[in-house]
Amino acid sequence: MLEKMFDPDSVAVIGASRTKGKVGRAVLENLMQNGKLRIVPINPNVDEILGLRCYPNIMDVPDGLKVDLAVIVVPAQMVPNTIDECGRAGIGNVIVISAGFKEAGIEGARFERECISLCEKYGIAMIGPNCLGIIDTSSGLNASFAANMAYEGNIAMMSQSGAICTVTLDWAERIGVGFSKFISLGNKAVLAENDFLQLFEKDPSTAVIAAYLEGVKDGPEFIRIAQRVSRSKPMIVVKSGRTSVGSRAVSSHTGTLAGSDAAYNAAFKQAGIIRADSLEEMLDYSRAFSVCPLPEGRNIAIITNAGGLGILTADACYNAGLSIASFEEATVERLREKLPPAANFYDPVDVLGDAGADLYEHALDVVLEDINVNGVIVLVSPQAMTDIPGIAEKLAKKIQHSKKPILCNFAGGSRIAAGEELLNSYGIPNYSSAERAVGSMNALCNYYSIKHHSHEEPERQDSDLVFARSFIESALSEKRRTHGLESMDILKAYDIPVVDSRIAKTLPEAIQAAENMGYPVVMKILSPDISHKTDVGGIRLNLEHADDVERAYISMMSDVRHYMPDAVITGVQLQKMISGGKEVIIGMDRDPQFGPLLMFGLGGTYVEFLKDVSFAVAPVTGAEAKHMVSSIKTYPLIAGVRGEVASDIDSIIRTLLKVSQLVTDFPEILEFEINPLMVLPEGQGCVAMDIRFTLKS
Amino acid sequence: MLEKMFDPDSVAVIGASRTKGKVGRAVLENLMQNGKLRIVPINPNVDEILGLRCYPNIMDVPDGLKVDLAVIVVPAQMVPNTIDECGRAGIGNVIVISAGFKEAGIEGARFERECISLCEKYGIAMIGPNCLGIIDTSSGLNASFAANMAYEGNIAMMSQSGAICTVTLDWAERIGVGFSKFISLGNKAVLAENDFLQLFEKDPSTAVIAAYLEGVKDGPEFIRIAQRVSRSKPMIVVKSGRTSVGSRAVSSHTGTLAGSDAAYNAAFKQAGIIRADSLEEMLDYSRAFSVCPLPEGRNIAIITNAGGLGILTADACYNAGLSIASFEEATVERLREKLPPAANFYDPVDVLGDAGADLYEHALDVVLEDINVNGVIVLVSPQAMTDIPGIAEKLAKKIQHSKKPILCNFAGGSRIAAGEELLNSYGIPNYSSAERAVGSMNALCNYYSIKHHSHEEPERQDSDLVFARSFIESALSEKRRTHGLESMDILKAYDIPVVDSRIAKTLPEAIQAAENMGYPVVMKILSPDISHKTDVGGIRLNLEHADDVERAYISMMSDVRHYMPDAVITGVQLQKMISGGKEVIIGMDRDPQFGPLLMFGLGGTYVEFLKDVSFAVAPVTGAEAKHMVSSIKTYPLIAGVRGEVASDIDSIIRTLLKVSQLVTDFPEILEFEINPLMVLPEGQGCVAMDIRFTLKS
Repeated sequence: MLEKMFDPDSVAVIGASRTKGKVGRAVLENLMQNGKLRIVPINPNVDEILGLRCYPNIMDVPDGLKVDLAVIVVPAQMVPNTIDECGRAGIGNVIVISAGFKEAGIEGARFERECISLCEKYGIAMIGPNCLGIIDTSSGLNASFAANMAYEGNIAMMSQSGAICTVTLDWAERIGVGFSKFISLGNKAVLAENDFLQLFEKDPSTAVIAAYLEGVKDGPEFIRIAQRVSRSKPMIVVKSGRTSVGSRAVSSHTGTLAGSDAAYNAAFKQAGIIRADSLEEMLDYSRAFSVCPLPEGRNIAIITNAGGLGILTADACYNAGLSIASFEEATVERLREKLPPAANFYDPVDVLGDAGADLYEHALDVVLEDINVNGVIVLVSPQAMTDIPGIAEKLAKKIQHSKKPILCNFAGGSRIAAGEELLNSYGIPNYSSAERAVGSMNALCNYYSIKHHSHEEPERQDSDLVFARSFIESALSEKRRTHGLESMDILKAYDIPVVDSRIAKTLPEAIQAAENMGYPVVMKILSPDISHKTDVGGIRLNLEHADDVERAYISMMSDVRHYMPDAVITGVQLQKMISGGKEVIIGMDRDPQFGPLLMFGLGGTYVEFLKDVSFAVAPVTGAEAKHMVSSIKTYPLIAGVRGEVASDIDSIIRTLLKVSQLVTDFPEILEFEINPLMVLPEGQGCVAMDIRFTLKS
Repeated sequence: MLEKMFDPDSVAVIGASRTKGKVGRAVLENLMQNGKLRIVPINPNVDEILGLRCYPNIMDVPDGLKVDLAVIVVPAQMVPNTIDECGRAGIGNVIVISAGFKEAGIEGARFERECISLCEKYGIAMIGPNCLGIIDTSSGLNASFAANMAYEGNIAMMSQSGAICTVTLDWAERIGVGFSKFISLGNKAVLAENDFLQLFEKDPSTAVIAAYLEGVKDGPEFIRIAQRVSRSKPMIVVKSGRTSVGSRAVSSHTGTLAGSDAAYNAAFKQAGIIRADSLEEMLDYSRAFSVCPLPEGRNIAIITNAGGLGILTADACYNAGLSIASFEEATVERLREKLPPAANFYDPVDVLGDAGADLYEHALDVVLEDINVNGVIVLVSPQAMTDIPGIAEKLAKKIQHSKKPILCNFAGGSRIAAGEELLNSYGIPNYSSAERAVGSMNALCNYYSIKHHSHEEPERQDSDLVFARSFIESALSEKRRTHGLESMDILKAYDIPVVDSRIAKTLPEAIQAAENMGYPVVMKILSPDISHKTDVGGIRLNLEHADDVERAYISMMSDVRHYMPDAVITGVQLQKMISGGKEVIIGMDRDPQFGPLLMFGLGGTYVEFLKDVSFAVAPVTGAEAKHMVSSIKTYPLIAGVRGEVASDIDSIIRTLLKVSQLVTDFPEILEFEINPLMVLPEGQGCVAMDIRFTLKS
């Protein structure tokens, strides 16, 4: 159905206006840029606008005109009725430009809900409300009130902010960047990013997908779709409201519920999305993708006519994790043949200040042929002799036909402007700084990995679902929301090894339990009122015989009563003491946008002070679980390098997968943590020592 | 003397040329832009160039012409002789533009050394060789072959790369940025950054100092001068060759010995220098400083006509460590008075898409008056109704007279160009992205702290210098370069507490030593051949009585002989066992540019895997030592938060100061490490447990 949204034969403008400066006039004028389009203005007060026959109401339009798309610009309170009329008139696509909906308060939110119901009722596809409209350069449609029309190009852009659409179009106009489709998402009441991702995926004129998002409407579905789309087309997304301060601004701006940034980072990574940190980065990267082939590795050659710029660029490459290429001997020889003796024949190649277009071309040809070079960054500074347009012309032609990516930085202002314009006229970006060129090259390299990364589906982990469900349901029915040690059985249902652990209500029971499981043991207080056991003397380690258990029991009861006289004490827990392991934490927090967000980290100070943890949205694949474990900075501590004992990493990965399954199976679990999970040396597995989780009320 | 370099009455061009495109002609033409200057071309082959009387040799110039400055453009091999002639002609200032010196190889380096000797002999101040020349806009001097003349302004710029001078001048020409002085440093054979820093410090037309450096000539002096200069004028420096890859490029480029990046970071911080990560940042920051007053705090108000941009800017503020201002109630009320009801009256203030110049002005006036606002970032997107030039005009006038800094981001391309040009015509920057504006605001905030940070001089720490000197000298004379445990006495000379430690050559001696110092003790093998004692069974902990010592001694000797049969064993070291402390490391490495670089970190994995360490160039002040300790990420572990025992931080600081003194007193010490320094709980001090240092050969 969306085909007619973007390539309609006939478009109605409901709220069309004769008055210059009004949105209802701007939309009409933009639509009229396309001479082949049948345009139907709707306005009850006039018969004609800009030479077009005007109808009082959409329902008055004769059947023969068959309106494919209605653009609505009437005040918010009139929009629901207008949509109803569109539905009755059989119109399948509407764009609601009008503002005054969810973003404006309670009444507006009600209008918005009414629109959604009506769209459902009539099966209408709706963009907006509160948007700038859409542009499709292949069909020649400009159904927006944007002041600038987009040039044709292969970048599809969608934005949750109309103003950012405006900024982007204005920027693109100045330097000649083209778009295939340009969509202002507005409040995303009906159609949202997931719909357009699928549209862009199939759109033959789209090669690159760029987006500005403040949130996503359906997180899990977004990940699923993006995982597929990102393997055929690069997706570059700016997600704003990264920080707590920023998030506050989001909610006052569009009422979007911004997910935590950790969740977005994890979800984007899992979905193969390239996250841009700013609008500038998004545009920079998009332009690189729109022109360049992908580099098959991270070895970059730099060609410069200024040593200093070469060094700065090498610095930037290093910081971005790109390597400076090591040339084949033949490359160095071929460079030496034509470049002056004072030139530098190794990377960065310095063609010297008086180099002309021919020397640049020679150097570029030679390094492109080197098998150790995956991409090239060309730097041009305006030296006295530098033929800026000549070099730009040669570069533009190379770039268009090169099988390896080439990015340029003509550095300067007045004198390099001619080179910049020339490149732009070929649709080729000039990056205003080496750092921007390097950042974009890095994005190309990263996308190569994303595209060639084999994707698996999460595998279902075995579990005793019947037991687990009855456990959760009985807890819910008894309103037991917070769970600890006493609920370790839920782990057993997922075959997660649990420390041998017994509950005792009296001292004799405690001694009996210890004797049965074998020494040494650990004793912990059991009380629904106590969450930090150590603080109240509620833990005793390393008890080696019955005497120890007795002494520990008596003193623990006395300590706990001293610190928390009112606590209900249900007994003690005796656990087999495990030594020789390392403590790790596996946790889950339910993110409002993406659902179960898994966390992994080393126990103790590493998590608390260094925040050295990794995240992924569940359900995770084996590769994702493995990456969670290996991507923390303290990974060497468990991997067993430099004299550290290698821990059983595989058992951590297995446990992560099982926890992933558990929290996916039971959305009733709001938060979950195994802390610590004691990981034993390689081959000896791991054991959950304690657990805390919370169920929804 | 440098006054006549930058404001000469008469300038000779040695190697002046008639031929268009030649450097000798370009320099002449640039000089001739100043009609008041007496210009004397020197060329043996012609009588006149461009209407100026030409002399065959500088020594032929009549005394009456009194040349203040000679610009030399003859080939490198002729330069030494030319300088000799300048000296004999009594010329005090020369600029050597010619290349072909140190940067070109062995022969060039010889020419350069000859020039240096001659300059010393005649007392000549020389800039270069291998440079673009200099520009002084106050005196109207352009003694360079640059294609662009600088506009007048208050930024002084020096650059070690001529090409980066060219890039910067070209950039400045396009957007109208002015400079007071512009210096191409070249090879820095005689005059270098330290000389010009002092010049800029006193120069009344300079308010901001910008520099591109690939290295510094005299590191300790650079720190000393910059510490003083940076308190009166902001210094923004790009130091390239940050990374190992980059450093390689530096050495092939100018032969500069690049110091390690950690040393530069530490030195710049101690010197009050703002380090820019790129040329773009350097220029961005310089422009902000050239126009803006300093913010007295880090609370920033954002004014925008586009919600999305406001969020992105708030994100960027948060990332940079700036706060979004909390307005006074009166501010919100005053905003509410004039802004439309749908506007946002809290920070970020959204004046809405149709806001005109008056609304922007109102919002700006109101937030500027709020005591909680230290600086303002104004965002303007080109919405349909937006009066770009009108808003730019209002902003420019406010910015010029504001007592708080205001930075702008007109976001877009075609339509905002008019605003950008208008701002530029007032000398006011438009930042092309919110992130760049925020980065510059952050630099202003940081400089406010630098300027108001009270600076102390390092205090001399007490020491037994006589003992220490004789210790070092006897070690040097005996060619003992590597020192360990056996040399702990050097610490005692600086009053650094050392663990009670005795050497024993036989088992009876070992038992005697343990009995004398009291149990428990630790035993370590003593051998010049063994550096990793643990690996060969050369350490025994927790020996509690004579029997333990005996058993340990026998088994250790057997183990060590087994692992290293050929090692010379000189005995064992017995140390009092210390428990209840935390291990930290204090180290020193001698940096080629800045000298003794101190390092501090927590022991073990924190240093090894997390590289959680801090650096400072010795000698350090108390405040610097304190900052070294508190700036590591794991500081909470020793500061005693969240249940951790507070360690004796003061004793760490004292030890850092003493090590700083030791390595400053003895440049003979190349590397030095106390590892571990055992830090006891607060009030109980610290104890050096082991030591390693290396003396120069």
